[in-house]
Amino acid sequence: MIQAAIIGGGGFTAGELIRILLHHPGVNLNYVLSESQVGKLLSDTHQDLIGETGITFTDEYSPEVDVTFLCKGHGKSKQFIDKHTIPESTTIIDLSRDFRLKDGNPYIYGLPELNREVIKNNNRIANPGCFATAIQLALLPLAQARALHSDVHLQGITGATGAGQAKLDTTHFSWRNNNISVYKPFKHQHLTEVYQTIQQCQDEYRSELCFIPMRGDFTRGILISGYVKTDLSEGELLNLYHEQYAHEPFTHVTEHNIHLKQVVNTNKCLIHVEKHGDKAFIISAIDNLLKGASGQAVQNMNIHFGLEEHTGLHLKPMAY
Amino acid sequence: MIQAAIIGGGGFTAGELIRILLHHPGVNLNYVLSESQVGKLLSDTHQDLIGETGITFTDEYSPEVDVTFLCKGHGKSKQFIDKHTIPESTTIIDLSRDFRLKDGNPYIYGLPELNREVIKNNNRIANPGCFATAIQLALLPLAQARALHSDVHLQGITGATGAGQAKLDTTHFSWRNNNISVYKPFKHQHLTEVYQTIQQCQDEYRSELCFIPMRGDFTRGILISGYVKTDLSEGELLNLYHEQYAHEPFTHVTEHNIHLKQVVNTNKCLIHVEKHGDKAFIISAIDNLLKGASGQAVQNMNIHFGLEEHTGLHLKPMAY
Amino acid sequence: MIQAAIIGGGGFTAGELIRILLHHPGVNLNYVLSESQVGKLLSDTHQDLIGETGITFTDEYSPEVDVTFLCKGHGKSKQFIDKHTIPESTTIIDLSRDFRLKDGNPYIYGLPELNREVIKNNNRIANPGCFATAIQLALLPLAQARALHSDVHLQGITGATGAGQAKLDTTHFSWRNNNISVYKPFKHQHLTEVYQTIQQCQDEYRSELCFIPMRGDFTRGILISGYVKTDLSEGELLNLYHEQYAHEPFTHVTEHNIHLKQVVNTNKCLIHVEKHGDKAFIISAIDNLLKGASGQAVQNMNIHFGLEEHTGLHLKPMAY
Amino acid sequence: MIQAAIIGGGGFTAGELIRILLHHPGVNLNYVLSESQVGKLLSDTHQDLIGETGITFTDEYSPEVDVTFLCKGHGKSKQFIDKHTIPESTTIIDLSRDFRLKDGNPYIYGLPELNREVIKNNNRIANPGCFATAIQLALLPLAQARALHSDVHLQGITGATGAGQAKLDTTHFSWRNNNISVYKPFKHQHLTEVYQTIQQCQDEYRSELCFIPMRGDFTRGILISGYVKTDLSEGELLNLYHEQYAHEPFTHVTEHNIHLKQVVNTNKCLIHVEKHGDKAFIISAIDNLLKGASGQAVQNMNIHFGLEEHTGLHLKPMAY
Repeated sequence: MIQAAIIGGGGFTAGELIRILLHHPGVNLNYVLSESQVGKLLSDTHQDLIGETGITFTDEYSPEVDVTFLCKGHGKSKQFIDKHTIPESTTIIDLSRDFRLKDGNPYIYGLPELNREVIKNNNRIANPGCFATAIQLALLPLAQARALHSDVHLQGITGATGAGQAKLDTTHFSWRNNNISVYKPFKHQHLTEVYQTIQQCQDEYRSELCFIPMRGDFTRGILISGYVKTDLSEGELLNLYHEQYAHEPFTHVTEHNIHLKQVVNTNKCLIHVEKHGDKAFIISAIDNLLKGASGQAVQNMNIHFGLEEHTGLHLKPMAY
Repeated sequence: MIQAAIIGGGGFTAGELIRILLHHPGVNLNYVLSESQVGKLLSDTHQDLIGETGITFTDEYSPEVDVTFLCKGHGKSKQFIDKHTIPESTTIIDLSRDFRLKDGNPYIYGLPELNREVIKNNNRIANPGCFATAIQLALLPLAQARALHSDVHLQGITGATGAGQAKLDTTHFSWRNNNISVYKPFKHQHLTEVYQTIQQCQDEYRSELCFIPMRGDFTRGILISGYVKTDLSEGELLNLYHEQYAHEPFTHVTEHNIHLKQVVNTNKCLIHVEKHGDKAFIISAIDNLLKGASGQAVQNMNIHFGLEEHTGLHLKPMAY
Repeated sequence: MIQAAIIGGGGFTAGELIRILLHHPGVNLNYVLSESQVGKLLSDTHQDLIGETGITFTDEYSPEVDVTFLCKGHGKSKQFIDKHTIPESTTIIDLSRDFRLKDGNPYIYGLPELNREVIKNNNRIANPGCFATAIQLALLPLAQARALHSDVHLQGITGATGAGQAKLDTTHFSWRNNNISVYKPFKHQHLTEVYQTIQQCQDEYRSELCFIPMRGDFTRGILISGYVKTDLSEGELLNLYHEQYAHEPFTHVTEHNIHLKQVVNTNKCLIHVEKHGDKAFIISAIDNLLKGASGQAVQNMNIHFGLEEHTGLHLKPMAY
Repeated sequence: MIQAAIIGGGGFTAGELIRILLHHPGVNLNYVLSESQVGKLLSDTHQDLIGETGITFTDEYSPEVDVTFLCKGHGKSKQFIDKHTIPESTTIIDLSRDFRLKDGNPYIYGLPELNREVIKNNNRIANPGCFATAIQLALLPLAQARALHSDVHLQGITGATGAGQAKLDTTHFSWRNNNISVYKPFKHQHLTEVYQTIQQCQDEYRSELCFIPMRGDFTRGILISGYVKTDLSEGELLNLYHEQYAHEPFTHVTEHNIHLKQVVNTNKCLIHVEKHGDKAFIISAIDNLLKGASGQAVQNMNIHFGLEEHTGLHLKPMAY
């Protein structure tokens, strides 16, 4: 059994991780550290866990585990690592933004569809951002075919869980219910990881990713759509996408138009591609907390520890 | 023109009151006092007001108005009145709970269907609570006929605006969306005003009002249903209700089952009555912010100042 | 491996059953019969299944399975059984209302918390209704203690999936979004099964179950609350409930107030009990499609075939 | 009083029109024609109208009115006009797509911000489409400044009422709740009216309007965002927009980011403009049934009949 620890156990991504790991047949959830929740039952904070576990939050870090998931949030992973001596042999999977960019740190970028072999062989893994995952999976086949030659026009809409538990004006129910708004147009923080990945595949790419994110009036999920000029025919385009993802366990290309609830509460990414005039048009959908965060973290763990990738991730879709 | 002031202008009920008064043909909204918003445009706080007014919040109380609406919240109306000398000639309409119970204060209870004549002749008006309004209008015909002889079993569900702007766990979008819960069973704070009204009509009533309120996953509206044993036939029952409300401008009895969105964004109360076995079964619906708060406050103002009751309250329903 | 068939594969309960059985480690989903969907991929109809299965709907009944789930809907199970010869050795789990009442048919009532031993030993199982499950689990400890002595007052609210796929006025999004309504007050069709169960436990019970169901503006879940007069102290009451469900795999009693999303996308039933004055007040919550339908059907299958009850039912909660 | 008739009274746009006209101080709603609803009370079909009117649907066309609103839906306005002789002196305001394109028909395009003078002087008015209204108002200042020189990239999201009352898979509550999807990318039917308007302002414009519409999980409203390369500085851009709409009664430019519920249940269009790099970025929001349909129809009526444009259109925003 893989011994696992979660650092920063009170938030949404930790909650999802706990839900998955408690039922993961190859993992023992050794402890969950949370300074703010210390002493409470996991099920006092994540109230759907009643009946599933009797363990309580701790505030003592212990290095005696095989894998440590960092869920403390952006900026705080670095702080935690600076304060604590994590053994080199322990696998760290970091769910924050702190190590996603190659800036000399030892972390590799944990997008399985791009870096599966690298993930197997490295035990410092930076888990991708949610919007970043959905956008990269939408563009990866084109980037790997070095077929991105101009600006990509992207829009995306995310559920409220993407904003975490913080009580903001924009996460108040009376504001958000039946409401829609744009935020951070052209400058969402996830774009840097997407550029990094595209340039890893197609180093000469210098055009712009024009991305308009929206706050959606739902809790879970991200739907991205985007288009870019292409010389590829529709047939070539479809081939490219089908071949890229033919053997992926979670990322699937479908000839039908897609909708968000096909992926909610799963670790899947669904992708649909069409040709319109001179443009490739791509739609992708993920659950922001699963393929966009905790599900992908477990997928990375499975890959790294040599488990079958689906292990613990056969999640029943929400569907309705 | 009636000169009107709003004290406590930043919250939900003040927002609704401003929306109504700005278009009320007989009212000039003289000023809106808010210590927390002082200096800001009304439309900076109530952002739907863009294009409707250029006035800003003040923090200076001025007695030079005909009517003062108190929207500061429970406990704070008393404080405000203690601190400021409001002329006796100024009409005060208080939207808090502070003066709803007859405990020696000079305020009368502003439920038009019960107290229309009293409202005409008094200028200290305590505006009823939202749940209290919906329950009282459901029971008033029976109480006035002295036909309540046993426990009344009531359930109700309210929109999130009922909880105000406070950022609570239970008003966070990620929690409340698609969620339902019970709160304060048997002891909702509005029950005391309902008992007071029932005993005003039927002073011997000593049975219980068993009321189970729920938090709904919508923003506006209250739906109440309740039942009580009765000797009245269905015909007598319907007569009672139809007669009670035949001339009411906002409270209507219908032979069809009702649903919440029939009243959302209106000052109406819809009521449906059926006989089931030995029980009278009643459903009532209001918009908690309008008939349950600010709309009723304006209705009270209209009554007191001798305006036609509908003035400024021909509100387009949301409908969908 | 248990060979399983689903009859009537196009609807919501069949969809949930497929989602569960595809990942159930002890089951092979042999075929899914649907006359309306014949020839289509399961994932064309249940579109979240992309990537999970390549099987298509059939319209040919085959008796060569160990368990047959009937999901054709009310009235149609009887028709199907009349038309087809199902071997006596095949276990039938019927999700319709057709055999829930003891009227001479060979079916036993598949509520595990009531009838676990009976379910083990019988292979004709009538799966309970969704509201019926939530109400029975709320009342079972009292009924088994023969402690129901007067009318029980119940309210419940259900998600739109409870109405199935039919395109009704009341399932149109523009109507139902942010809307609430009462339906079938005092006469919901599930009450007969509840009376049957209560009288099985406490045969002298002749009082009324006064049940007011509501249509909720969410997709999944049922929240029930109810109260009844009792002589039991709060301590006795809590003991009764805790003891009843102490060893149940899915039904849990909690000292905290509950909310619907604690159980959505799980097979759990959560129950909370309080004493108010002379009344026991109980809240229960289930996912109408899981513990209220397909999840309980699989639980019944697990019991009958001697599998651990949780098998295939470790479902990740939706939580948010 | 203007005598008004509505043809095709059962749908969503007719419902909104009735709600507005019943309280319009300058209009008498003479009759509402609907073959499907004939004989029923308006409030049987539009159930929020209880207490507001006692009139019933008719199936007899009468020419004795000043203005006839056609709400029968796309393709059916032409049919109606072919079958009935509408006097030349009667003003026709058509809410369908039938006459929006200048193809030799006598109808002028009823976008007040573009064609106010034309609307005054013509009594055959084609009311713009909902998406078309939001897009045109977002682009009009640039088009009128002849400042559109390249492709415009647009995304939009619409409420379910945009799909009308039809019971589609995509308007079923269990599908649409908390769901998002793209439809008709690059080829929404409203684009032709937008091109027509842009070329009316800037006849040499030959670039593409790349428009990706989405189905939102809310009932009312459209939020559009779009960008286009521009040489204008941010200051020039803001000036352009502020000047264009400075005197508009319903279309307002704001320096703050906007959100959908600022306009829901109003006839407003809110617009926000920013410069990002070399691009003008514009967000616009309307209520699809009001400024996008029936509200704009009444605005056109007010203009044509010389009433103040706000008459009957001081609608209380939904806000929450």
